[in-house]
Amino acid sequence: MLKVPDHQVAGHQACDGKLGPLIDDSGHFYKPLQNDGRGSHELAFYTSFSTDKRIPDRIRKFFPVFYGTRHLEASDGSGLYPHLALEDTVSSRINPSVLDAKIGSRTWYPQAAEDYIIKCLKKDRETTSLELGFRVSGLRVYGNKETGFWKPDKKCVLNFSIEDTRIALRKFVSSNPSTDSDIKPDCSFASTVYGGPAGILAQLLELKSWFEEQTIFHFYSCSVLMVYEKESILQGRNSGAEIKLVDFAHVIEGKGVIDHNFLGGLCSLIKLISDIVTSSA
Amino acid sequence: MLKVPDHQVAGHQACDGKLGPLIDDSGHFYKPLQNDGRGSHELAFYTSFSTDKRIPDRIRKFFPVFYGTRHLEASDGSGLYPHLALEDTVSSRINPSVLDAKIGSRTWYPQAAEDYIIKCLKKDRETTSLELGFRVSGLRVYGNKETGFWKPDKKCVLNFSIEDTRIALRKFVSSNPSTDSDIKPDCSFASTVYGGPAGILAQLLELKSWFEEQTIFHFYSCSVLMVYEKESILQGRNSGAEIKLVDFAHVIEGKGVIDHNFLGGLCSLIKLISDIVTSSA
Repeated sequence: MLKVPDHQVAGHQACDGKLGPLIDDSGHFYKPLQNDGRGSHELAFYTSFSTDKRIPDRIRKFFPVFYGTRHLEASDGSGLYPHLALEDTVSSRINPSVLDAKIGSRTWYPQAAEDYIIKCLKKDRETTSLELGFRVSGLRVYGNKETGFWKPDKKCVLNFSIEDTRIALRKFVSSNPSTDSDIKPDCSFASTVYGGPAGILAQLLELKSWFEEQTIFHFYSCSVLMVYEKESILQGRNSGAEIKLVDFAHVIEGKGVIDHNFLGGLCSLIKLISDIVTSSA
Repeated sequence: MLKVPDHQVAGHQACDGKLGPLIDDSGHFYKPLQNDGRGSHELAFYTSFSTDKRIPDRIRKFFPVFYGTRHLEASDGSGLYPHLALEDTVSSRINPSVLDAKIGSRTWYPQAAEDYIIKCLKKDRETTSLELGFRVSGLRVYGNKETGFWKPDKKCVLNFSIEDTRIALRKFVSSNPSTDSDIKPDCSFASTVYGGPAGILAQLLELKSWFEEQTIFHFYSCSVLMVYEKESILQGRNSGAEIKLVDFAHVIEGKGVIDHNFLGGLCSLIKLISDIVTSSA
């Protein structure tokens, strides 16, 4: 049974008869191939990446597993449509808190079309991308059964200032992620979710060490997804804190040069999260 | 006695009656204040930096010592003119080989004037800055008494491709830095100049560790100068390998965010140099 995932925080969504991703009960996430070249580009990346022997396992685990393509009934009712079949790392979780950070101060690649560059540059300057090296594209943070999720709308998130981004990263690991700006986020879960040997910070640092060396791919307009389960922590179990890279429609060949644009942005995200862990310790 | 330095590889030069830097016998380098705001900006940076207690000594040593300003007879004959008095780390050396790498895939800062941004962006795209995260602005490499220096002209350097940059970084530490492109650079001095505990790579890594943390300054259009003395190596003495940051006319406040643009470019330079050290070991 295909259904529309309810955990998405960014990207095209399959609501109101639009074309968007679907999930099933087998733990697969089906992403419709975008039809302007981006779809085939992303497919080419997954195909190449999934068989590339140079990717160490410690890094491969940060990417969704790729199961090939499937022709499925599209969410917009247009009939059979090709979808990427991917590992669904979020839907199987219980009330997952999710944050999507688009990495890089520049979301366009040097060889892109001029109008695309102008469009991206404008958005990079209007959001925190240019100054901060990344921008939050979306998030939802679980509060409790009564409050449900704190999920600021897309427009609001794209207007985040650097300070808003800092606060969002604090709220993401707080027990009181209210919209009320007078309430200071308590960062109760910072040490559990961000900190520790298996926390998000450790995973980001592992990813960083690879980006300091790898010259195979340049990841433009790619996101780091951060996920964890609050209720699991409250029940004394593992937070399930995990990072995944997603969105590879604008990955280009590295040609022997490191991805300094992604690396710089990643280091900026690491610094902000590291500051939160330190100040909550 | 003031004179025109002969070791400059980039920037304004005091030749043909133009305004440019001067040196004297006391080890000072006098840089005329640029009069379009850049001069006062650079002066403000040196003044602030030189008294900033947050800069650790292990990092301060990578910046020229600042001795205040001096009114000196300008090199263009226009009379007394204000100059920054700086430590001259190059002129006191014997036949120094020098390479100037302008760091960052973006040389413009977010708040700059629109026409300045367009100008910089164009140059970043035309040079290796955008793709490589830095560009070589100039270099001179000492050969021997007969051949003197290999010093490609400014226009040629600005046209460097990524591959040309790779070769220039190899030639910089070679005993045969010929213009003849058929001769493969031997990288004889790679392990001495780039490698080792006091080599340029170790210094760049030290600098990098600071950039992963520091959120005080953002260094736009700033260069890493690399210097060493070939003859000193041949005589069995220390290579004198040293890095210095120069050109601070476009430094802005970091406001709690790391300089991801500089850091990314620095990591790219580190990777290229590291590759040379590894392949020459």
